[in-house]
Amino acid sequence: MVCLAMSWVKTLGAILVAAQVVSSQGLTDAQKAHASKTISVGYILFPGFEPLDVFGPLELIFSTSFYYNMTLATISHEVGPITARPPPHRMDSAGPPMDLSYMINPQVIATHTFATAPKLDLLLVPGGTGNLALAQANDTSVEDFIVSRFNETEYILSVCTGAITLARSGILDGRRATSNKGAWVETNGVGNNVTWVPSARWVENDKVWTSSGVAAGMDMMYAFLKMYYGEEHINTLMNAVEYAPHTDASWDPFSVVHNVSFQ
Amino acid sequence: MVCLAMSWVKTLGAILVAAQVVSSQGLTDAQKAHASKTISVGYILFPGFEPLDVFGPLELIFSTSFYYNMTLATISHEVGPITARPPPHRMDSAGPPMDLSYMINPQVIATHTFATAPKLDLLLVPGGTGNLALAQANDTSVEDFIVSRFNETEYILSVCTGAITLARSGILDGRRATSNKGAWVETNGVGNNVTWVPSARWVENDKVWTSSGVAAGMDMMYAFLKMYYGEEHINTLMNAVEYAPHTDASWDPFSVVHNVSFQ
Repeated sequence: MVCLAMSWVKTLGAILVAAQVVSSQGLTDAQKAHASKTISVGYILFPGFEPLDVFGPLELIFSTSFYYNMTLATISHEVGPITARPPPHRMDSAGPPMDLSYMINPQVIATHTFATAPKLDLLLVPGGTGNLALAQANDTSVEDFIVSRFNETEYILSVCTGAITLARSGILDGRRATSNKGAWVETNGVGNNVTWVPSARWVENDKVWTSSGVAAGMDMMYAFLKMYYGEEHINTLMNAVEYAPHTDASWDPFSVVHNVSFQ
Repeated sequence: MVCLAMSWVKTLGAILVAAQVVSSQGLTDAQKAHASKTISVGYILFPGFEPLDVFGPLELIFSTSFYYNMTLATISHEVGPITARPPPHRMDSAGPPMDLSYMINPQVIATHTFATAPKLDLLLVPGGTGNLALAQANDTSVEDFIVSRFNETEYILSVCTGAITLARSGILDGRRATSNKGAWVETNGVGNNVTWVPSARWVENDKVWTSSGVAAGMDMMYAFLKMYYGEEHINTLMNAVEYAPHTDASWDPFSVVHNVSFQ
């Protein structure tokens, strides 16, 4: 939990009271159900994932796991360290090869492969330059995994250009979506009958949510967790994380900055 | 770099122009010097580090390493996976043992130990429940490392309760500092002649900067990187990260939320 100490005494006391109070006050049946079981979360990783696409939402999920039973599987081609450093790729099909091996390489552990990942309730898909490299290598492992888990998952959420991966998997067909505004051209021609929303911090469909770039994942995840569990503990942890979320899904100054207000 | 694609063509072009323009327009000698060499960054990790304390600032540093030469060492007691899940600890010296082994455990790779870490220009110290466990085990490895690297580093920055670690190391003596507002009681009696600032998003001293909790690290890091390199590329990457930073170091609604406006 977020670097608390003595305030935990107060918090634990509050939790004990709240756990009884909240359960009887205004929670939906779905929220009660979520709180009563262990939620299995899967987070996709690949070489060149965007760090904050993962750890923005994951900080909130980590903090939530203090209050509610959750498990986390970090899922990639192989178990072990996965680097955020972008692998070799081309900027576009006609472009020169990009060698970003000079960038720093923070590494995160993948605990499962696409083959060994457990049954999932929630699946999270980050963006990052790496998904460009995968696409150029005709590697559809992530898309295939998304398709294979679509029915069993309760929700699938993407951050940033993870939306492009979702579109390539087909699960955005007939749905609305948004993506990173600095890379908005990537949405062209991807998926079938996808309504790309150029001005949106995030977009909610029935079971598929997509956010704009990088930091937008935290705003989407706050809205999601409140919907999923009810707001009491989620608001408490946001105050501990000292993050003031943007709560209007249509707030998107970056669509203006990157000139994609009009598609 | 933040999940861009074709916009990189534009960006690269802009960089080539900017690199020549910026270097001759308004950069300080220090900023020019930083841009002209390889900056060695060290990030401390320990079991129970707070994920966003690390990956908030690290996303910005990672993105910055697209523009400027940097190296990253992630430093802990041992190399290999370091978990964010809090280890066993007590909430306070008289309190019951806390077993948070039910929380999810994202793991990040430490590339160096305190003994093997390279010479550092910048040293970053996160918070998290883990530093409470270290203190209770009388483990001063992190404090000792900070002391040993104080002279060689150009800057030392802490996020969240990392400020408590800095205070215990002695390097905040005679300096001003802030820390996570949800755990403000932890600042009591730590360090000598430390001016703890209860309402501050972050606090800057000569070479020691400290931020408030968790997400505040991103706001501090934005201010720091602009100071360190000049604003042009840093502003570009912030737009790509789609994070709207809080730029007033005195902005601190969480000091009100957590009732520490008055010490």
